[in-house]
Amino acid sequence: MADIPARTEIGVTTGPIRGSRKVHVAARTGSGVRVAMREIDLEGGEPSLRVYDTSGPYTDPNVAIDINMGLPQLRREWIMARGDVEEYDAREVKPEDNGQLGPDRSGGVPQFPSVVKRPLRAKAGQNVSQMHYARKGIITPEMEYVAERENLGREMIARERDGQSWGAAIPDFITPEFVRDEVARGRAIIPNNINHPESEPMAIGRNFLVKINANIGNSAVASDVANEVDKMVWSIRWGADTVMDLSTGRNIHDTREWIIRNSPVPIGTVPIYQALEKVGGIAEDLTWDIFRDTLIEQAEQGVDYFTIHAGVRLPYVPMAAKRMTGIVSRGGSIMAKWCLAHHKESFLYEKFDEITEIMKAYDIAYSLGDGLRPGSIYDANDEAQFAELYTLGELTKKAWEQDVQVMIEGPGHVPMHKIKENMDKQLEACGEAPFYTLGPLVTDIAPGYDHITSGIGAAQIGWYGTAMLCYVTPKEHLGLPDRDDVKVGVVTYKLAAHAADLAKGHPAAQVRDDALSKARFEFRWRDQFNLSLDPDTAEQYHDQTLPAEGAKTAHFCSMCGPKFCSMKISQEVREFAARQNSDSYLASESLKGENSPDQRAENEKGMETMSEVYRAKGERLYLPEQETE
Amino acid sequence: MADIPARTEIGVTTGPIRGSRKVHVAARTGSGVRVAMREIDLEGGEPSLRVYDTSGPYTDPNVAIDINMGLPQLRREWIMARGDVEEYDAREVKPEDNGQLGPDRSGGVPQFPSVVKRPLRAKAGQNVSQMHYARKGIITPEMEYVAERENLGREMIARERDGQSWGAAIPDFITPEFVRDEVARGRAIIPNNINHPESEPMAIGRNFLVKINANIGNSAVASDVANEVDKMVWSIRWGADTVMDLSTGRNIHDTREWIIRNSPVPIGTVPIYQALEKVGGIAEDLTWDIFRDTLIEQAEQGVDYFTIHAGVRLPYVPMAAKRMTGIVSRGGSIMAKWCLAHHKESFLYEKFDEITEIMKAYDIAYSLGDGLRPGSIYDANDEAQFAELYTLGELTKKAWEQDVQVMIEGPGHVPMHKIKENMDKQLEACGEAPFYTLGPLVTDIAPGYDHITSGIGAAQIGWYGTAMLCYVTPKEHLGLPDRDDVKVGVVTYKLAAHAADLAKGHPAAQVRDDALSKARFEFRWRDQFNLSLDPDTAEQYHDQTLPAEGAKTAHFCSMCGPKFCSMKISQEVREFAARQNSDSYLASESLKGENSPDQRAENEKGMETMSEVYRAKGERLYLPEQETE
Repeated sequence: MADIPARTEIGVTTGPIRGSRKVHVAARTGSGVRVAMREIDLEGGEPSLRVYDTSGPYTDPNVAIDINMGLPQLRREWIMARGDVEEYDAREVKPEDNGQLGPDRSGGVPQFPSVVKRPLRAKAGQNVSQMHYARKGIITPEMEYVAERENLGREMIARERDGQSWGAAIPDFITPEFVRDEVARGRAIIPNNINHPESEPMAIGRNFLVKINANIGNSAVASDVANEVDKMVWSIRWGADTVMDLSTGRNIHDTREWIIRNSPVPIGTVPIYQALEKVGGIAEDLTWDIFRDTLIEQAEQGVDYFTIHAGVRLPYVPMAAKRMTGIVSRGGSIMAKWCLAHHKESFLYEKFDEITEIMKAYDIAYSLGDGLRPGSIYDANDEAQFAELYTLGELTKKAWEQDVQVMIEGPGHVPMHKIKENMDKQLEACGEAPFYTLGPLVTDIAPGYDHITSGIGAAQIGWYGTAMLCYVTPKEHLGLPDRDDVKVGVVTYKLAAHAADLAKGHPAAQVRDDALSKARFEFRWRDQFNLSLDPDTAEQYHDQTLPAEGAKTAHFCSMCGPKFCSMKISQEVREFAARQNSDSYLASESLKGENSPDQRAENEKGMETMSEVYRAKGERLYLPEQETE
Repeated sequence: MADIPARTEIGVTTGPIRGSRKVHVAARTGSGVRVAMREIDLEGGEPSLRVYDTSGPYTDPNVAIDINMGLPQLRREWIMARGDVEEYDAREVKPEDNGQLGPDRSGGVPQFPSVVKRPLRAKAGQNVSQMHYARKGIITPEMEYVAERENLGREMIARERDGQSWGAAIPDFITPEFVRDEVARGRAIIPNNINHPESEPMAIGRNFLVKINANIGNSAVASDVANEVDKMVWSIRWGADTVMDLSTGRNIHDTREWIIRNSPVPIGTVPIYQALEKVGGIAEDLTWDIFRDTLIEQAEQGVDYFTIHAGVRLPYVPMAAKRMTGIVSRGGSIMAKWCLAHHKESFLYEKFDEITEIMKAYDIAYSLGDGLRPGSIYDANDEAQFAELYTLGELTKKAWEQDVQVMIEGPGHVPMHKIKENMDKQLEACGEAPFYTLGPLVTDIAPGYDHITSGIGAAQIGWYGTAMLCYVTPKEHLGLPDRDDVKVGVVTYKLAAHAADLAKGHPAAQVRDDALSKARFEFRWRDQFNLSLDPDTAEQYHDQTLPAEGAKTAHFCSMCGPKFCSMKISQEVREFAARQNSDSYLASESLKGENSPDQRAENEKGMETMSEVYRAKGERLYLPEQETE
């Protein structure tokens, strides 16, 4: 058939993450659902550590990756088994979908070879959103998958909870029923379009692990489809839980197809970008019909969540006039321009219920956009920002009337003392729908380091209850990120999300910190690297000064050298103190500095005994086991 | 004289920071004290912005730098004018001071050519600490310098205060009297040894700008004197307020001499390291006499503060036995080993008052060491850590009895929910002496990124009241940092300290964020770079995708391109809204969405008018000034 494009070579990174082994854990319900995770094998007799894994089949050596074929359709059977969907002829892809290219798409990107010609949608009168099933009391395979995944396949950890969760309700152990209940209440979402069966289900919600999103996508000035698919695979390798394709250049449709077909994580978009491309970049020429058509187009491809800036209402736009940095959201500024030009209320706001009808036919989640988020410290928590937030709360309720899943986007640039107010207001206004923030950046003065200025705010707002953190790379404010920036952004946000889990007292979070610190203390360098978020960089940094293989078991590194390594000296101290304890000498009581003469005499006698023992054993503080009495 | 070594070529970075101009501002008291700062000139008619500057004469194009001569002795006259010091013959430098080298120091580093043979010390019965003067009601030139420096030479900014300072008392404007009072109370310190007259005075205290420290120094495994002097100059270029020389290898004495003579910022050390080198690395062979001699040696060279682990007491050592990572402080582990080996109380604790006698004769500040700080999440806030903290509080009071300046070192590895407890306990235990923390790191799982894991904790604890933050570089836990790591660590901690100042509501902090954001919004790219903490990196990142000179005034960057730049669209929106306001149409009230029929009719009429105006003016949203009615 002349229509089938030639195979395209797009290179992506495959192979296991250093030190990790992909595993698939059977859901304990016995349903047959198998959940992807990975295990880190350790030395020294330590048990393997299981960690949450977003990297998909790319890190599974048993899977042959062919970007031209896309990933296996993991969820297809579950979707079909529900009996509430039908295939239909896709909307015809038009030249403007790809930025005004001719029908043969010459000069653009190659078309994805295995495009689905007949997408799914809900049968008439049906609602296929996970929230709808949840509210009907149904536990779907997706919910089971999520439960097993969040537990990391473990049994309940009987452990004293230690954290401050600010009123969250994180259970010791996640059951499928718990997932169902959270989704039914709207406190969590499972974003997965019926046309994205390749996705491994995940949950976004305050009572689950804090998630992170990576942004990819080209612009008119930079990048292409090969780079963007590579970035998607690279970002999930390092831990991105969802990926947003924010392309604003050409070939938006085809680029997105390649990405979704090859993505094991949910994909989000901002449909207004493509709609704007279709009208040649003239915001005033946007219409509801063009937008609606774009929603259908993207729904058929399988986008899992849409950012919709329905809160940028005409009355709010002038509030931004007194700001330092105006409206920094691309979609928000586009809608603001449209509203003013037409002197009409936003069509996103007015047609909201019609948008919801589309969402529920494909199970697409709302990401209600923070078009009026503050883009500078000066604008933080201002009138425009909260006016929008309260409208988003109103729209959340409308979406929930149709059982459509919702999450709420948030700021932005916010100094630390104003962060908690954002969380408190969002919880109150939006009925505990999940919060999804961009940082926030806690100061404006460090472009080039905004992954850090925002990582600081993200860790805090994640601790307070934000469910997903949208990453920021070092290139923020300066240019389009490349793959190195993507990795740095992802790892920064993974550590921030994990810090939030720890502070919230998530029962399983500290297991990894403990395993790594134990490896560090015992000089199991390879284990320390393998347990870290970025084993390659950790090893590379270590090897800059100590590359020899013997250094991987050395009881020091180049920071202090052998004589001064506190960890090494600490080990000696610990062994010695343990011996003293076993001689029932240094019981804590006797050494709390009590100063009675009897106590001091007893202490000194014991001290002399110990000095003798120490000298008799050759003045070694570290005694091999055989020599302990 | 055969003794004078040949000139040594040590390369350091000189020249202005991109976009900045060194200025010297006369203290408004008219005393003649002139304070170094820098100004950033802006385009577009914007006033120059003055910022705090730690870079010393290295960035002053009017100063000829000669590392062999050292810096000008800025404070010499002030010190001599007080009439309470005398010169004397220095202690003789011995081979073991430099790690067992022969008298000709062959194989070591070159000796600093201009060593001061006759250092200063207090005359008999005198106390030369700034705290002593402060308590006598004397405002020293150092205090004046600090006041002018903290104000950035500005007048009082009449501005509504916006922050949460958790009970701090930051004034709108710093007077020399305020500085005196803070130092007298012990709530701030001005660390400057009378033998370090080259230093530009600075204050560390909760009610002043949050400060940062950079660590340099070699180890037995890596680095040399040229690298270390270069790192010192490099670190202060980017913003380090103090520098600690933590060398543990050879040539400790000579390396330190080069550093101090060439440092405009206070220099701290951990004397126990050099003492340990003198006994060949055998902790048990340490003695009070060797330690005391080391204190004198370093005091004569001009070290401004000493880390003394006097809180690692014998009874506390076994508490560390149940820890995950034992004792991670080098000094702490050395003292712990000594205590156990001798079965005696720490000589640092027992001889504390004698140490204080030395400190007060040179005006050296205590940095009471956190030898039992937690080195893992598991160990955070444990019994050992707080036992030591309460002892440090006891020792603070003893030091204050002799008017000797004190700051308190702090953790470490602490999950976010446990950070505030550290601040609260330290304030209570240590009489509000300044707190000086290492991070804390909020999770253990990201070696290679520990500047970020700790930057998150540092920003928070700085907000809560910590006065100085000790930096962490990407190499933490992995190896000795190189100069690139030093820069990344410094900039990370500068942004964290600034975020803390902002959140505390420091009256002048937000000025810089506002100036940068305004530049960003107005597409003054060069200004944006020059106002940032690292102009070189910001420009480099921008230029990776848009290197052409024309891009420096372009109203977009490669993130979104011209059609999608929200800043550009925002500007258009703002202009248009401003015009609508001037036509008294879009008054906020009328647009708050009231739905009365009259109101709607009025709105629609106004909207039609505006649509006509818009179309009549050629459908342009951005109208040049001449065309406004």
